[in-house]
Amino acid sequence: MDAAAIRKTERLLVIFFKRIPPPLVAHINRKFPEAEVTIYHSQKAVPVPRDIWQNATLVCTFTDLPDLEDAGNIKLIHTVSAGIDHFVHHPIIQNSTIPITTSSGIHGPPMAEWTVMNWLASARKFLHTREAQKQHIWGDPDEYMPTCTDQVGKKVGILGYGSIGRQIANVCAALGMTVHAYTASPRPTPASRRDTGYIVPGTGDADGTIPVSWHHGLDKASIHSFLSLGIDHLIISLPLTPQTTHLIGAEEFALLAANSTHPFSKPYLTNISRGKVIDQDALVQSLKSGELSGAALDVTDPEPLPADHPLWDAPGVQISPHVSSLGREYFPRSLDILRVNLDRMKKGEEFVNEYKRGKGY
Amino acid sequence: MDAAAIRKTERLLVIFFKRIPPPLVAHINRKFPEAEVTIYHSQKAVPVPRDIWQNATLVCTFTDLPDLEDAGNIKLIHTVSAGIDHFVHHPIIQNSTIPITTSSGIHGPPMAEWTVMNWLASARKFLHTREAQKQHIWGDPDEYMPTCTDQVGKKVGILGYGSIGRQIANVCAALGMTVHAYTASPRPTPASRRDTGYIVPGTGDADGTIPVSWHHGLDKASIHSFLSLGIDHLIISLPLTPQTTHLIGAEEFALLAANSTHPFSKPYLTNISRGKVIDQDALVQSLKSGELSGAALDVTDPEPLPADHPLWDAPGVQISPHVSSLGREYFPRSLDILRVNLDRMKKGEEFVNEYKRGKGY
Repeated sequence: MDAAAIRKTERLLVIFFKRIPPPLVAHINRKFPEAEVTIYHSQKAVPVPRDIWQNATLVCTFTDLPDLEDAGNIKLIHTVSAGIDHFVHHPIIQNSTIPITTSSGIHGPPMAEWTVMNWLASARKFLHTREAQKQHIWGDPDEYMPTCTDQVGKKVGILGYGSIGRQIANVCAALGMTVHAYTASPRPTPASRRDTGYIVPGTGDADGTIPVSWHHGLDKASIHSFLSLGIDHLIISLPLTPQTTHLIGAEEFALLAANSTHPFSKPYLTNISRGKVIDQDALVQSLKSGELSGAALDVTDPEPLPADHPLWDAPGVQISPHVSSLGREYFPRSLDILRVNLDRMKKGEEFVNEYKRGKGY
Repeated sequence: MDAAAIRKTERLLVIFFKRIPPPLVAHINRKFPEAEVTIYHSQKAVPVPRDIWQNATLVCTFTDLPDLEDAGNIKLIHTVSAGIDHFVHHPIIQNSTIPITTSSGIHGPPMAEWTVMNWLASARKFLHTREAQKQHIWGDPDEYMPTCTDQVGKKVGILGYGSIGRQIANVCAALGMTVHAYTASPRPTPASRRDTGYIVPGTGDADGTIPVSWHHGLDKASIHSFLSLGIDHLIISLPLTPQTTHLIGAEEFALLAANSTHPFSKPYLTNISRGKVIDQDALVQSLKSGELSGAALDVTDPEPLPADHPLWDAPGVQISPHVSSLGREYFPRSLDILRVNLDRMKKGEEFVNEYKRGKGY
């Protein structure tokens, strides 16, 4: 027990609404050898006991927060979610100065994998191949040569160039594609193009050097000029706001189709943000008419998508139930951020992913 | 007709064993505006008429070659295949000095896409998701969170670091993986690590800078030391030779499994070279025992794989019928090499991908 040799100077409270499996508990203990770790399984509408909060010096949580008077020993609160919308009005946020850090930045790798998996499976006849294997049938090259396509040279347009869009861009560049970035506000300088949040080591586009062009704006004209670049893959990676609700609909799909220059692939839509950013009825129409060749949708409007919704069977559509960021790495990776910040705290350095009170992010 | 304005100074003969579809014929004419293009559909055991050969100054072919006495006007022969094994004993190779160029280098992008598609689909429950969609079922996050895994941090070992292995490495690096390269002969210097053949623009690893370590050798001990690095993905991208036949079998799979350090993924095998490099019975055993978590196989022994072969249903195996390089880009991309070389010929520069008579490659 090497860990036993290290003096326990912190008391880490990990609160989650699911049971944390024993291997993950062991992982947490190994990762924070300087802390006595308490794992607490919270339940809806049942408050976490006050003495549990009072004892903690560090907290890792999803939805639970302490009352102000029980937070006296807490030096840092880390949340397992990407944002803090779900508790932005809590007194801990409003009336304390306890640093809060988010898990923003951990979603890029799985969501980039999910995106590219959908593209490749759709362009390289993956389901056809699996079906033949199931029947023990060795296929004919003629089933593949005239129909499979690859991604080299395709133009990718990413609406919302945050940590997720950046890792998608990184993989796209390696596949030989060119990336065009779109952001709400202008990013004219190298400094403005940098990703200053947490980045999973070895991934992303920290300096924003991958896009061959940058575009911006919140008005229709700016979006339309972006959609006229000749984009083969449009990726929606925007937050849902009143401005972005139904931002992409019939007119936008028509623009994509009209400006497509690829010799044999019509534009393809990927939505990993929120279903309501898309006019979903218009999407079904554009898939049926062939304006779009397909769509990978991890989000729909509403969720769950009703069983009788026409989107399920629209041509070329691949739907998953809002799971593109999920996997066994999710929780350990969130704890990586707490680990980094604990080390920074000891050195008196600024935290990464700290929520800036007053700025709202 | 812009092309008509250009003087036709060459006569390009394109011979293929399949009919070339009209859009591709148009593409060829656009690509070689300085040439009168003749498309010839060859048939097995029927020689191409002599006057067709005699007229040509440039030839693009797969299996057909002219007699020496009909090749008087030919300045360059480009073959659509990666090597020239299939006609190495032909008098044109043996007794002429007509430059021959190959299509080596065009297979990297589709084969890298095929490789990564198989990994991601297998690790992210793609078939499960498609099955649920077919039944209009919105899944539960709990089906994904505890079972999906991503590729970040995984170690990739590539046996045979040619143009295909290099593009796989390029995509792996973007996914956050680390790459270890293995070659037959040592590559100690930057010059020895370079890819000097044709590279599809925007892809590959021209300078050989992606691998974090390089290994080499033809003996068992060298291979075994490589397989002991803790490799999560072993990729077979070697030519089949007497030395590489059954190179990877029971002992090698056991070594991979014994040295695996990944917290929850056992080693995975990818074979894109030839089925006989693997001891296939041993592979079935290692998949059944759980030593390996799965295998993506574009090649088997024999091909076609007989319908009653146990490999079809081995756990975690994904088989495709030797099609990983195929797609609509295949032929146009091969012609890109001829285009490059035609431009080089005009400038008196060395050809790319030229077969070196006497050297045997």
